[in-house]
Amino acid sequence: MSTAEHASLHLTRAELVHPDGRRIRLYGNPGASTPALPPGLPQLEPTALHLRCDALTGDWVAVSPSRNRRPLTHASAGATTAAAAPACPLCPGGPELPFPYEAAVFDNRFPSLIPDAPAPPDGPDGLIAASTGRCEVVCYTSQHTGSVATLHPEQVARVVAIWRDRTGALLEDPRIAAVLPFENRGEEVGATLSHPHGQLYAFDRLPPITARRVAALRRHRETADGCLSCRLVGIDAAAPERAVRDAEHFTVAVPYAARWPYEVHIRARRHGASRLTDLHPEEQTELALLLQDVVRRYDALYGFELPYLCTVQQAPRAPGAEDWHLSIELLPPHRGPETLKVRASVETATGAFINDTLPEASAAQLAELPIHAPPIAAYAAPGIHP
Amino acid sequence: MSTAEHASLHLTRAELVHPDGRRIRLYGNPGASTPALPPGLPQLEPTALHLRCDALTGDWVAVSPSRNRRPLTHASAGATTAAAAPACPLCPGGPELPFPYEAAVFDNRFPSLIPDAPAPPDGPDGLIAASTGRCEVVCYTSQHTGSVATLHPEQVARVVAIWRDRTGALLEDPRIAAVLPFENRGEEVGATLSHPHGQLYAFDRLPPITARRVAALRRHRETADGCLSCRLVGIDAAAPERAVRDAEHFTVAVPYAARWPYEVHIRARRHGASRLTDLHPEEQTELALLLQDVVRRYDALYGFELPYLCTVQQAPRAPGAEDWHLSIELLPPHRGPETLKVRASVETATGAFINDTLPEASAAQLAELPIHAPPIAAYAAPGIHP
Repeated sequence: MSTAEHASLHLTRAELVHPDGRRIRLYGNPGASTPALPPGLPQLEPTALHLRCDALTGDWVAVSPSRNRRPLTHASAGATTAAAAPACPLCPGGPELPFPYEAAVFDNRFPSLIPDAPAPPDGPDGLIAASTGRCEVVCYTSQHTGSVATLHPEQVARVVAIWRDRTGALLEDPRIAAVLPFENRGEEVGATLSHPHGQLYAFDRLPPITARRVAALRRHRETADGCLSCRLVGIDAAAPERAVRDAEHFTVAVPYAARWPYEVHIRARRHGASRLTDLHPEEQTELALLLQDVVRRYDALYGFELPYLCTVQQAPRAPGAEDWHLSIELLPPHRGPETLKVRASVETATGAFINDTLPEASAAQLAELPIHAPPIAAYAAPGIHP
Repeated sequence: MSTAEHASLHLTRAELVHPDGRRIRLYGNPGASTPALPPGLPQLEPTALHLRCDALTGDWVAVSPSRNRRPLTHASAGATTAAAAPACPLCPGGPELPFPYEAAVFDNRFPSLIPDAPAPPDGPDGLIAASTGRCEVVCYTSQHTGSVATLHPEQVARVVAIWRDRTGALLEDPRIAAVLPFENRGEEVGATLSHPHGQLYAFDRLPPITARRVAALRRHRETADGCLSCRLVGIDAAAPERAVRDAEHFTVAVPYAARWPYEVHIRARRHGASRLTDLHPEEQTELALLLQDVVRRYDALYGFELPYLCTVQQAPRAPGAEDWHLSIELLPPHRGPETLKVRASVETATGAFINDTLPEASAAQLAELPIHAPPIAAYAAPGIHP
């Protein structure tokens, strides 16, 4: 694809500071004017924030009492009338983004991790730490209704470009070890706002599962021959019965050891594609369209917007992480149109998972759904020009 | 307490084989006659059962498609009328226990782990295994209604004695590495039957969190001085602000790094009390009454039966597990009378937990609740005499 064809997809980034001190980054087409900010709401005092270590596992738990005051607008946001919009804090003119915008990222008003975390209170030796990190909100669009399934493909490509931009920026801070873009869709998985948006956490230490993935990569490199992620890509490529669809740069499959009936991983085939910032333009474009493709399959599965957890799993800053292949992993809690998989005692207290569904069976279901998928060649990954 | 006072609490155990081949163990007072068994239901064919390894973490996932056919009787079981009882498979005369009983343990009709698991299907090298283990159901009483909070204290003591009896018996099988008695209470945590009961899983390998706990104990023993569990008991004993109540042989506290707002751990103070089978009679009695005490506080918290996950965390068969102190750990999902803690993307995909509530604040709430707790000295741990 020529540079000229890319041109219309370039994004600009403008940075503002909310009157309460939080940063806002606006992403839009070149020529969009930067709005003026009205006075904002005061930020909640995050003095109670700190991390505590569960000595029995080594895991850190973020103690974050202010989060109990998060906004709940689902009841009103469910309506699609214009009258419902003012109740949404993410709509243009709301308290978070009090002006027109195309897409935006802002510091979460209810963070559990903050860049200049206060010194933690006294605690047992080695079991307490400051809540250092970042919690950001990513508004995919100023439109109140819709989802990744219904956005224009260029808007989904913009979301991926924003994730990439924030990943690069956050990792410039030497205190940040891992960046996790994610989306919780649906009340069933704890989403409190229905406006199309996701979030982004930056951690100053590896979260437990991230640390174990890096350890597994390192162990495989030391005891076997080569890259564990390449092996997984090979296993998925050799199992068309678990493929959800074909793609050039990624495998799109229900993973071999899926924990959730309709779990889907979109995993980079190329060794070296460890983070969003490593992606070539054609990979980035394909990734956005594959994400939309999977969400459209989810929504076609039972005829309603299937709730899901979605994370961009990318290499943290850690020795051994060079064998990480970027993936987007989607975990819908449904195991039937009216039944959810519940993590009960076994899953929660021992980590052992039980999956009621054969991964090959759910992959076949998802692969056969008739969805409208635009041709990937029609779109290009947007670059961002601050 | 004299031997004479213990005598009335002795239990007998009778073993039967269901016509479909599953084992039933009946626990009751001496003199209870062993009933005859009518023809039973055929057992589901568990040929699809196997384990798959998530290579990225090393965790094993049990693939168990037959579980989708589990019975659902909540709608009818919610009623307390006699007419509702026949719908319950756990009531006397039902398909599982077709005779009068006092308390019983039987092989789960919908197991995800079985003693003589079939050879697994073909799969990637090292990533597939047989589903070897045990899944049992523990009926606390033949009464259809009630819970650990409302049972007679001697009935709760009988439950603990049954857990102990099964732990010892299951660990006699050299293939079994870990035994987990547990209870899921409430539809919110996936309980499909309301008859007072729990379950018991026996694993042929350490579940992920169990393995990490053993690794933490070993690491602490090697790098620090002594037993990590003793250190935790000391930390809890020195923190009355997290104590839910006093006890002689156990700490009863919201743990320092609680993941759930109303999480409570009942942990053995004595080094060497690693499994139920290690408990002295006075410890076992106290444990039962403390369990009931905590559940009564839960039910007093908001005025309804608080759903919870409850696990008996005891030492697996593994090097380093000698520093394990037995605990009963209760995890209620509620963070308010009408709000649940939801594990969304961050918790699920990275293992990092965020707790909205200060452990000290919820401990104070639980500690202050006026509940009726019987004096511990009034009861003794039942012995079991097969």
